Amino acid sequence: MSYRVVGVMGPGEGASEVDYDAAYELGRGIATCGWVLLSGGRDAGVMQAANRGAKAAGGLTLGILPDKGQSRSPQIDIAVKTAMGSGRNWLNILSSDAIVVCGLGLGTLSELALALKQGIPTLLLAPMPELVALLQKLPAAQAARVVETPQGAIAELQKLLLQ
Amino acid sequence: MSYRVVGVMGPGEGASEVDYDAAYELGRGIATCGWVLLSGGRDAGVMQAANRGAKAAGGLTLGILPDKGQSRSPQIDIAVKTAMGSGRNWLNILSSDAIVVCGLGLGTLSELALALKQGIPTLLLAPMPELVALLQKLPAAQAARVVETPQGAIAELQKLLLQ
Amino acid sequence: MSYRVVGVMGPGEGASEVDYDAAYELGRGIATCGWVLLSGGRDAGVMQAANRGAKAAGGLTLGILPDKGQSRSPQIDIAVKTAMGSGRNWLNILSSDAIVVCGLGLGTLSELALALKQGIPTLLLAPMPELVALLQKLPAAQAARVVETPQGAIAELQKLLLQ
Amino acid sequence: MSYRVVGVMGPGEGASEVDYDAAYELGRGIATCGWVLLSGGRDAGVMQAANRGAKAAGGLTLGILPDKGQSRSPQIDIAVKTAMGSGRNWLNILSSDAIVVCGLGLGTLSELALALKQGIPTLLLAPMPELVALLQKLPAAQAARVVETPQGAIAELQKLLLQ
Repeated sequence: MSYRVVGVMGPGEGASEVDYDAAYELGRGIATCGWVLLSGGRDAGVMQAANRGAKAAGGLTLGILPDKGQSRSPQIDIAVKTAMGSGRNWLNILSSDAIVVCGLGLGTLSELALALKQGIPTLLLAPMPELVALLQKLPAAQAARVVETPQGAIAELQKLLLQ
Repeated sequence: MSYRVVGVMGPGEGASEVDYDAAYELGRGIATCGWVLLSGGRDAGVMQAANRGAKAAGGLTLGILPDKGQSRSPQIDIAVKTAMGSGRNWLNILSSDAIVVCGLGLGTLSELALALKQGIPTLLLAPMPELVALLQKLPAAQAARVVETPQGAIAELQKLLLQ
Repeated sequence: MSYRVVGVMGPGEGASEVDYDAAYELGRGIATCGWVLLSGGRDAGVMQAANRGAKAAGGLTLGILPDKGQSRSPQIDIAVKTAMGSGRNWLNILSSDAIVVCGLGLGTLSELALALKQGIPTLLLAPMPELVALLQKLPAAQAARVVETPQGAIAELQKLLLQ
Repeated sequence: MSYRVVGVMGPGEGASEVDYDAAYELGRGIATCGWVLLSGGRDAGVMQAANRGAKAAGGLTLGILPDKGQSRSPQIDIAVKTAMGSGRNWLNILSSDAIVVCGLGLGTLSELALALKQGIPTLLLAPMPELVALLQKLPAAQAARVVETPQGAIAELQKLLLQ
C-alpha cells in the first residue's frame, strides 16, 4: 500500500516544553490515523517528542537524517541517511503529503518557507503572532492554515488527506 | 524498532528477463527476513521486480525517487521524493545497510562505485566477468563479494546483518 | 587566487522595482570590490538585476542553477547546474562568504533562515518590519545586521571581508 | 560572457605519477583554451595537479567541494561548498560541458557512469583495458571516446566545444 506521510517540523535543541508536549500528541494522532510520521530523525526536541508519541501509538516513523546515521533517534523505524546537513530539509518537505509546524527555530523556518513555496499543505500549530504577521505579507504564504491544538491539527489533516 | 534496510540496485529500462526474475526473488527473500527493501522506487526493471517480490511476501518497501513522485511505483509503501535525479543514487547507498547489485546499467555502476567507496557491504549477483575484472584493478573495490543466486545473496546478507 | 564570494538573495518573479534597483547597485558594488557575485542564476528579478549590475562593473558572476541549465541568465559567467530545485538554496548559502537579503520571497526566506543557522554573515537590506520583528524572537537570528542602502551594505561587507 | 567548463575527473589519494603529470597538462591545456577547469576542488591527486596546471597557464579554476570548505585547494579560485560528500560528484558532472577521465578510482568511476548516463561528452585518457572492456558491454557507455595523450584530449575538446 502507499502510505500517507505527515511531516512534523520544529526545533531540535531549542524546543520549549509546550512544543514538546504538542509534538508528542501530534505524533500519537498521526500514528492513530495510520499515517507515517516523517521528521528530521534526530533524538532531540520536537523530532524526539513526535517520534515517541507515534511509537506509543504503534505507528511507523521515518527519519530523514542530516548525517550518515550518527544522530538517529532510537524511535526511528526507517532512516534515510543523507549526509546533506540542513540540505535535507528540502527532502523533508518534498516527501511529506502535509506538514505541521510545531514551535519555531531557524531550520523550521526554512522548512516552512520551502513547503509554502512548493505548495505542500501546511498547518501552523499555535504560531507566534510575529510569524503570522510576516506570512501575511508574502504571496503564497497565506495558504498556511493556523490550528490551535494538536487535536485541531489532526482534524484538519483528516480533511486534507482522507479526500 | 530500527529496521535493517537492504538496497537492490539494477537497471530500470535495460533489465533483462534474468535480472528481473532474480530481482523478484531478492525482494521476496529480503521481505521474508524482515528487512526493508530499498530501491530507486521507479516502476521499471529491477526496481519494479524487487518491489513486487517484497510485497508478495508481505514486506515493507522504501523508494527513493529521482523526482517529486511522478515515477513512483504502486508497489512502494513509503516514498522519499528527492527531485535530485541521479543525485539520489548517493542517498540510496548511504541509506542501505547492504546492497545487492542485480544486472548492470550506468546508474547501477555509479551506485556500486559509491557503495564500495563508502564501505557499504556490497554483493554482486552473477556479475558479468568484465565487471569483476575491472573491480580487481581498483583498491577497495575488492571488498565486493560475488554470489551466484538470489538464495546465495540472502544467505550472505543474513551473515552480514544478523551479527 | 581565492576569490571572496558574496551572495545576493531575493525574489525572482515577485521582485519590486525598488528591489530590482537595489540589487543592480549591490551587484555593481560587489564587482567593484573584486568579489564574485553568487546568485540563484536565473534570469529573473533580483538575480537578474544583481548580475546585470556586476557585469556592468566588469565583475565575475557565479550562478547556482536549480535545473540543468535551462534557466541560466546570459549574465552568468560560470554556472553550477544542480537539478536540485529549491534544494540548491542550501548550496547558495554554504558557498557564500556573506549574503545580502534584498526583497523577500519564500525562497529568500528559506535562504535567510539557513544562512543564520549556518552562521554565514547576513545583511538585511531595508527589511520589512515584520521580518525584523520575527527574527528578534529567534535565537541566533539576531546576528543579522540591518543596512538601509546598497552603499551601506557594501561598506558593511568591506568590514566583514577585508579583515 | 558564458564560460565553457571542462571537468577533469580522477583519483585523489590513489593517483599515480603518470596520472598526476597528465592531469597537470590537461589543466594547462584547458586554461590555454580559455575554458574554466572544474574539479572536486580538493588538494590531492588529479584534482591538485589539474588545478596547478591551470593556474600555471593563468586559467580560472572552479572547485565543487565535498565539505564546507575544509578540503579546499589553494589553487581553487572559486569554491562551491556542498557538504554533500560524494553526492557532489553528480554536480561535477551536470556542471561540466565535457569531462576528461584521468586515472581511475571509485569516485571517478561513479562520475564516469553518471556522465555517460547524462549524455555529457566524455573522454577517457589512456584508460586501462579492463575499463574499456566493461564499457563496451553497456549501452550508452560506448559514447565515451578514448584519447591517448593530454594533447589529444585538448584537440578533441576543441572539436566538441568550439562548434
